[in-house]
Amino acid sequence: MPDIHASRRDRLRDRATGSGLDAVLVTSLTNVAYLTGFTGSNAALIVAADGADLLGTDGRYLIQAQHEVPDVQRLIDRKALGAMAQMLAKRGTRALGYESHVVTVDERAGLVEALPDTRLASVEGAVEELRATKDEHEIELLRSACRLADAALAGLLADGGLRAGRTERQVGRDLDARMLDLGADAVSFETIVAAGPNSAIPHHSPTDRALDRGDLVTLDFGATYRGYHSDMTRTYVLGEPADWQREIYELVAAAQRAGRHALGIGADVVAVDRAARDVIGAAGYAEAFGHGLGHGVGLVIHEAPMMGPTGTGTLGELMTVTVEPGVYLEGRGGVRIEDTLVVRADGPELLTLTSKDFTVLPDRNNQI
Amino acid sequence: MPDIHASRRDRLRDRATGSGLDAVLVTSLTNVAYLTGFTGSNAALIVAADGADLLGTDGRYLIQAQHEVPDVQRLIDRKALGAMAQMLAKRGTRALGYESHVVTVDERAGLVEALPDTRLASVEGAVEELRATKDEHEIELLRSACRLADAALAGLLADGGLRAGRTERQVGRDLDARMLDLGADAVSFETIVAAGPNSAIPHHSPTDRALDRGDLVTLDFGATYRGYHSDMTRTYVLGEPADWQREIYELVAAAQRAGRHALGIGADVVAVDRAARDVIGAAGYAEAFGHGLGHGVGLVIHEAPMMGPTGTGTLGELMTVTVEPGVYLEGRGGVRIEDTLVVRADGPELLTLTSKDFTVLPDRNNQI
Repeated sequence: MPDIHASRRDRLRDRATGSGLDAVLVTSLTNVAYLTGFTGSNAALIVAADGADLLGTDGRYLIQAQHEVPDVQRLIDRKALGAMAQMLAKRGTRALGYESHVVTVDERAGLVEALPDTRLASVEGAVEELRATKDEHEIELLRSACRLADAALAGLLADGGLRAGRTERQVGRDLDARMLDLGADAVSFETIVAAGPNSAIPHHSPTDRALDRGDLVTLDFGATYRGYHSDMTRTYVLGEPADWQREIYELVAAAQRAGRHALGIGADVVAVDRAARDVIGAAGYAEAFGHGLGHGVGLVIHEAPMMGPTGTGTLGELMTVTVEPGVYLEGRGGVRIEDTLVVRADGPELLTLTSKDFTVLPDRNNQI
Repeated sequence: MPDIHASRRDRLRDRATGSGLDAVLVTSLTNVAYLTGFTGSNAALIVAADGADLLGTDGRYLIQAQHEVPDVQRLIDRKALGAMAQMLAKRGTRALGYESHVVTVDERAGLVEALPDTRLASVEGAVEELRATKDEHEIELLRSACRLADAALAGLLADGGLRAGRTERQVGRDLDARMLDLGADAVSFETIVAAGPNSAIPHHSPTDRALDRGDLVTLDFGATYRGYHSDMTRTYVLGEPADWQREIYELVAAAQRAGRHALGIGADVVAVDRAARDVIGAAGYAEAFGHGLGHGVGLVIHEAPMMGPTGTGTLGELMTVTVEPGVYLEGRGGVRIEDTLVVRADGPELLTLTSKDFTVLPDRNNQI
């Protein structure tokens, strides 16, 4: 996709030129990947006002860089960042943008030493801002990632993989294996399987606790596909539900619906969070929803925009975000429901398609 | 293990006091884990000359921090780093050490703003230097991690899991599953399974290429146990070996032996690298060994000391390192053999116990 990457670099170049910079040095690996398609573990990128862009990496990635980034000049050096600074000095760079939220104090000192006559200016968050708005190519990859997660969960449920007697860890590994079998490149993050009282812990790591009848079971998981992450949460009840379980499930589902409906071009992120939060608050559970409503998702699992009570900014077309309210009752259990959606002019597009209807799983007696 | 963590903090405290610092602010998560035992994903630590240490994290980790770090005062705040800077200002801190190789330019600006009357001094690498020398508690965890990897590989081989017809990806996932089944908390890194010509690529990612008769197959993998990583590589031949395969195998094995024997207290890391490299060079394969000999291993998979041609420093007692020479013949195949070992006064202790004898695996016709 050289065209897509070139147009992304052009957008950054426009911003650099507008700020009077000769070049921007990009050192966030994710941002380099976004701007070039390079997937190695060591890289930096110069986006130059005059178009003389340069990708730096080390000898391990010589062939990979040729293959992935045919349209940008490459500099191969064991200490690529230092060599790129030398190159910028040779070019007579007067004003250089750099990622002050990524560059360490020591790295900046190295730049200052190599570029004594260059003014360094922060371009903090510039590429992250570009990344927040997806293009249709990215959305297609996100759609594929979400489809893999949907299919893995459908398979798990169809095969009775979510049943009393299995441990949280077993269920998590089963779900992970299904995503990989279906073609995921990796899992998006450590899969959360939280059963019974554990479902009241939002970021619970799977344990050897066995799922039991009457448990709420929360699954929060995602697949990575060509660098893009899906993120979805579903909560089920094993066997006959208690009234309180059904009550908080329907409450969270209503809040999640309100949050989804609030997604729109120009919507303030705080207002979207509040749309869902007010539903939970009105039912008297405000204290039981202790985290933000959602976040952008793309090349990393948590990225701009952040949608919470202390967020800033508004949503734009083609931003891709999660909506994931929850109600957590310590010692008893919790419910979280999460989708990944694309903000569009004619209403949000849902990428995670698994049903959110209240679902009671059969009370099986199968052995593991 | 509060005692162990307290004594680690005391070592850093001694260094801070010796440098005239009132406190050190530790922001590397790995370093915080080393000094406190805390395993959450957001934390910072103050190690104070007067003993008033403070762990900062956010509300998600309230209970976990109480449990894991009972012996250090805790500060819970959504923006823990900012709150800790306020606390340091309140304490009248005049000289503060900080990790300039970890702290970003923006984070440093935040510290300067919150601490206008404080001198900031880099303590770059101070904790990493402490970490390079393990204590017996850490070595026991590393031993457990290595044992898990040994057992997983033994099971894979015993069950005929390494055979023609299986893909690199299938073998990798089988090995990973075995480590997790045996009790690993995670895998140390993406398992490398490289068969045939792919074995000439040192950091090959597993593909859908099927293993074939006559292939060299390299497995480079490790288990994580309670935060500590194992690292081991073995190379096998499937079916009847060619002379060149046997030749480079025995060469790499001899080089690896030379490298292991060169490990000793006071040994220069460059000399250890050379001990192995000279064996390969003398056989005319210098160009085919393009990476360093090994690295420290512990809370992260690659840590100090780095043992390569451009390394610096000497080995000390209880440093734990890998020794992993390789010979890579592009388009044909390669061999790498790697162990994890502890430097000890009476000679290195081998932690990865799987045989390194030249092993030809049976030429099975099993289907997958």
